[in-house]
Amino acid sequence: MKIHNASEERESNLVLALDVSTKVKDERDIRELCGRAKTILDDTERFIAGLKVNFQLLLPLGLYGYLQEVLDAARAYGLPTIMDCKINDVEHTNRWAATHFFDAGFDALTANPFAGWEGGLKGVFDEARRREKGVILLVYMSHHSAEENYGREIVLSDGKVKPCYRFFAEKAVEWGADGVVVGATRPNVISEVRKMLPKDVLIFSPGVAIQGGDVETVFRAGADYAIVGRIICEAKKPGETAKWYVERIKSVLRDRG
Amino acid sequence: MKIHNASEERESNLVLALDVSTKVKDERDIRELCGRAKTILDDTERFIAGLKVNFQLLLPLGLYGYLQEVLDAARAYGLPTIMDCKINDVEHTNRWAATHFFDAGFDALTANPFAGWEGGLKGVFDEARRREKGVILLVYMSHHSAEENYGREIVLSDGKVKPCYRFFAEKAVEWGADGVVVGATRPNVISEVRKMLPKDVLIFSPGVAIQGGDVETVFRAGADYAIVGRIICEAKKPGETAKWYVERIKSVLRDRG
Repeated sequence: MKIHNASEERESNLVLALDVSTKVKDERDIRELCGRAKTILDDTERFIAGLKVNFQLLLPLGLYGYLQEVLDAARAYGLPTIMDCKINDVEHTNRWAATHFFDAGFDALTANPFAGWEGGLKGVFDEARRREKGVILLVYMSHHSAEENYGREIVLSDGKVKPCYRFFAEKAVEWGADGVVVGATRPNVISEVRKMLPKDVLIFSPGVAIQGGDVETVFRAGADYAIVGRIICEAKKPGETAKWYVERIKSVLRDRG
Repeated sequence: MKIHNASEERESNLVLALDVSTKVKDERDIRELCGRAKTILDDTERFIAGLKVNFQLLLPLGLYGYLQEVLDAARAYGLPTIMDCKINDVEHTNRWAATHFFDAGFDALTANPFAGWEGGLKGVFDEARRREKGVILLVYMSHHSAEENYGREIVLSDGKVKPCYRFFAEKAVEWGADGVVVGATRPNVISEVRKMLPKDVLIFSPGVAIQGGDVETVFRAGADYAIVGRIICEAKKPGETAKWYVERIKSVLRDRG
């Protein structure tokens, strides 16, 4: 996955979630939001291994509109970009979404394995393989009620029972995903999932800081990348905050060897 | 829900999924796609009760960009609009997505109950309630592998076992959803879910025609609305095709009484 090179070059295992947001009354608000996003990127780029975009930025900026300025800036810095769309529709729609996200310049996207393979995510993986793009599957999210769903036991066809996130982690291997998402609020799940995955299937962990996850614990548990958003984007000096996280991560990775 | 009035006025229980799609090289392609969408809407508007938009239209047109022309046209016709985003993220992101979709003019959106309530979909329902907008929850999708997930049995906290779609239908009632999605390919599930829901929680059924669902069977089973997309959008005379579906639906609803 493209992020590996950026990570080695930059000695960083931090993905910036560019979660800036605003209500939009007119085009001035959109331009202002775009400017704010680019300023944060400029300030943090030396410290990050990749950039993640979500709906709070995509919807106001527009995929082929102002968002192109952000994606161009990331490309100029050599930073890979992830669209966190958590796609979970039928194949026809999933494939078109992937086509547009990849055409518009994203290097990877996230998908919810709950959509299944046949008639579901198969088209997304086909599209990604054909273009050497990445697919990252949700395995266990960071929020409180993820326990009710990602953490719930499901009944398999042979009658045996298994937690949903283990089923999803197996799908990540079976379908050839490039990475998975496991929330920073569940370090035990990170350790467990790390043992299930080949080394080249990367674990991305969101939910550090504001959602309560601890960045050092997350890397001790075996995460490959932390995804950090608001605590950096809302800092007075985003670059300083990003740098602080990178140093914490580095010290754990040195110990991990 | 706003769709009820449009449906009574227009004597239609058909929702048009405006699933037109194209690759985008420049703004001309975007304008052309927007024009194509509006032409289909103009041709079918007399026969439909509402309009559904998905990523294949949202991404190229842009929410605050050309998509506004489509939403303005729907509003001028008095047609309610549904954004089929199947949102399934953490609360912070879900709330921003809902804010933008509603601000931009959509009357309702779809969400995946797999995201859960606390820290998940609660913010979407709050935002919808505050503005008298609708939330439609996925209960059982139309595609083949939905069986592996929506159809799978899950273990409840008391150790009992229940199919996931029944759990989701219960959440629709508990959370106060305005409607649910049950695929046209599963008429038995439509009947079963209809019995679980109060009458004012509407069943929307996609997957007619190209995905294999039969429109009459779907309404006999208890659906309130069929969502039909490509078979209409790709027809030589979209209005004629829409009218054909409306007549089929009407005949079943007359028998249903």
